[in-house]
Amino acid sequence: MKVTVSRKAHFNAAHRLYNADWSDARNAIVFGKCANPNYHGHNYELIVSVNGEIHPETGFVMDMKVLKKLIENEIEEKFDHKNLNEELKEFRTLNPTAENIVVVIWNILRPKIDDKLALSITLYETPRNFVEYSGE
Amino acid sequence: MKVTVSRKAHFNAAHRLYNADWSDARNAIVFGKCANPNYHGHNYELIVSVNGEIHPETGFVMDMKVLKKLIENEIEEKFDHKNLNEELKEFRTLNPTAENIVVVIWNILRPKIDDKLALSITLYETPRNFVEYSGE
Amino acid sequence: MKVTVSRKAHFNAAHRLYNADWSDARNAIVFGKCANPNYHGHNYELIVSVNGEIHPETGFVMDMKVLKKLIENEIEEKFDHKNLNEELKEFRTLNPTAENIVVVIWNILRPKIDDKLALSITLYETPRNFVEYSGE
Amino acid sequence: MKVTVSRKAHFNAAHRLYNADWSDARNAIVFGKCANPNYHGHNYELIVSVNGEIHPETGFVMDMKVLKKLIENEIEEKFDHKNLNEELKEFRTLNPTAENIVVVIWNILRPKIDDKLALSITLYETPRNFVEYSGE
Amino acid sequence: MKVTVSRKAHFNAAHRLYNADWSDARNAIVFGKCANPNYHGHNYELIVSVNGEIHPETGFVMDMKVLKKLIENEIEEKFDHKNLNEELKEFRTLNPTAENIVVVIWNILRPKIDDKLALSITLYETPRNFVEYSGE
Amino acid sequence: MKVTVSRKAHFNAAHRLYNADWSDARNAIVFGKCANPNYHGHNYELIVSVNGEIHPETGFVMDMKVLKKLIENEIEEKFDHKNLNEELKEFRTLNPTAENIVVVIWNILRPKIDDKLALSITLYETPRNFVEYSGE
Repeated sequence: MKVTVSRKAHFNAAHRLYNADWSDARNAIVFGKCANPNYHGHNYELIVSVNGEIHPETGFVMDMKVLKKLIENEIEEKFDHKNLNEELKEFRTLNPTAENIVVVIWNILRPKIDDKLALSITLYETPRNFVEYSGE
Repeated sequence: MKVTVSRKAHFNAAHRLYNADWSDARNAIVFGKCANPNYHGHNYELIVSVNGEIHPETGFVMDMKVLKKLIENEIEEKFDHKNLNEELKEFRTLNPTAENIVVVIWNILRPKIDDKLALSITLYETPRNFVEYSGE
Repeated sequence: MKVTVSRKAHFNAAHRLYNADWSDARNAIVFGKCANPNYHGHNYELIVSVNGEIHPETGFVMDMKVLKKLIENEIEEKFDHKNLNEELKEFRTLNPTAENIVVVIWNILRPKIDDKLALSITLYETPRNFVEYSGE
Repeated sequence: MKVTVSRKAHFNAAHRLYNADWSDARNAIVFGKCANPNYHGHNYELIVSVNGEIHPETGFVMDMKVLKKLIENEIEEKFDHKNLNEELKEFRTLNPTAENIVVVIWNILRPKIDDKLALSITLYETPRNFVEYSGE
Repeated sequence: MKVTVSRKAHFNAAHRLYNADWSDARNAIVFGKCANPNYHGHNYELIVSVNGEIHPETGFVMDMKVLKKLIENEIEEKFDHKNLNEELKEFRTLNPTAENIVVVIWNILRPKIDDKLALSITLYETPRNFVEYSGE
Repeated sequence: MKVTVSRKAHFNAAHRLYNADWSDARNAIVFGKCANPNYHGHNYELIVSVNGEIHPETGFVMDMKVLKKLIENEIEEKFDHKNLNEELKEFRTLNPTAENIVVVIWNILRPKIDDKLALSITLYETPRNFVEYSGE
């Protein structure tokens, strides 16, 4: 009897899309206005989903208060009101596309969550663009 | 050619999180303000999803009008404007966490829906907390 | 140059609609399933709006961090995960309709906010029902 | 390391539900007010999702700008502000239920998207009714 | 102590924008694809707002159940799953723009609602386009 | 017979809150993490509302296609994927708070819109923080 439990959170950050191995011209062609060297930004909406058995005593798959706190400490603290390219070591050489950000977040949270729970992360970069990663 | 068809519905209910086998003190520690003996409540948003073949004559997997009516009769009628702990027999000894509620709803609807259709239920307890169960 | 600044917040609470001067039968007729003596509940969405001049040094009408904290301390702390009828003195004799709740919230916040700022409160009882009060 | 990338789009269209092999009476019984011969309409919300490996140079599974353009050219151009029954050859003999529309959209987009990417389409006919098709 | 009470509802309809005094060519130039003679359609979202004193016995400005029923009987019944140009006498010579529809709805509801209550109607034609009319 | 017509748009931008007349320490105290010198960013949601008489021939207060194009040319082109502090002359000495941004946008659009139409601008900085300015 496996249930998926999801918690929404959010953070606001600046970024630019940029491949350091390319010329500025090529970056501008491939990434368009997202390559703006002065950065732009987003309100990122994050959904963290864990799947597993319901614990018979609590009725929880995972205590939502614990999950909320974990997201605050591990993700919001680190990403909120930051410049992803400049301030997060993960993106020093990795382009902060939504795809790469969602994988980075999954990799941060995976070791902090019980191995018996499957983990899936959804990230909205804008209300119209979003990505999902399940570690597969 | 299998399509998933989903219908949203909602109900408003009171509940508290509570394990009758535990002391009040332990309930308060584990469930925090959700254990308030005077209850609190939610606008629950419900999504019922069925997956199956499109019927060639109607173009329907399942008639949405039938699904809407089924949700009204079996779920809204039973859950809406109710105190889940006090008034629903399913929660006399079962803690009405979102996880347990979604399983209860799935168990109510499963026998009422054609065996050839897979059934999945998503339940939003708040806009930031939601659960999903597919009978697995 | 007056700007309106709004902050959204939310709380989850149980309530029932009930006029103590009426018979149970009359309460049931007038308030329908909202009169359920076992209570039901809602995810209340709250919007607090203040209107005033932009401060030339900060660019703020009112510091949103201060407004957020004020809503947490004065409203969320008091209303969240509570039974409005049983636990809030304001509703001992006052029926906790959305209309009465929004006036109570306005009356709590008005003395805590600078007199030079106009105050308006919007309260969603459900995604389809909401009320607004401006102290007029 | 497979990520799902989704892009939302929308189109407004008129349609009616109708099986040309049936009498008008039977159409009216089965499809109710959706069979109105004068048509009704919807704001369709469309989500196109592709799943695949992140390209190491761009950090993209698929360039969202390309996906956005593809949806505009192949779907919005064809469906937006149209009468689906009267103006789209796909629905000359096929009933434009949400289920059939989502399959038609999947069939249009599938050959235009890299074979290495899995494709899934979600279509909201109303905020409360939606369907999903993955080509299975 | 005046409170505004609002209720959301919706209807799905087909329409086209068209001025019968103009040539088809001029209609096409002014209204673009909205002039399509085969119609297109929308999920209209409607918000009906009434402003007035809170009744001291009920705590209501206006009973939301009554308002909901009124909208169903007077507006949804008439507009839902209809072709506005073909089936509503109000639009026989009046172009069914969002502006004209909102005025028509206000004019239908105004005589049905207590004179002591101010009435304002908001109509979403799409999630990005909406209009509001207060009878002024 | 005056109707308000509203159009939603959006842009993504980076900014920081900063008063150049203050020390970095005071900026950090007053603006908190919003003062981060490396910037952060938002998906700004913009609502442009015009109020006026319905034109009897078109049924429009203002052609929504014209309003949409005006917002694209005057606002999105200028603000989207930009660093507000670094790239917009309006914010060289003006702190780009939501309040100041909404006034700047109003001032840009006011001369481009017919004098007979009242203009009001709403700007969402996040889903929970928003501001409104009507030129008063």
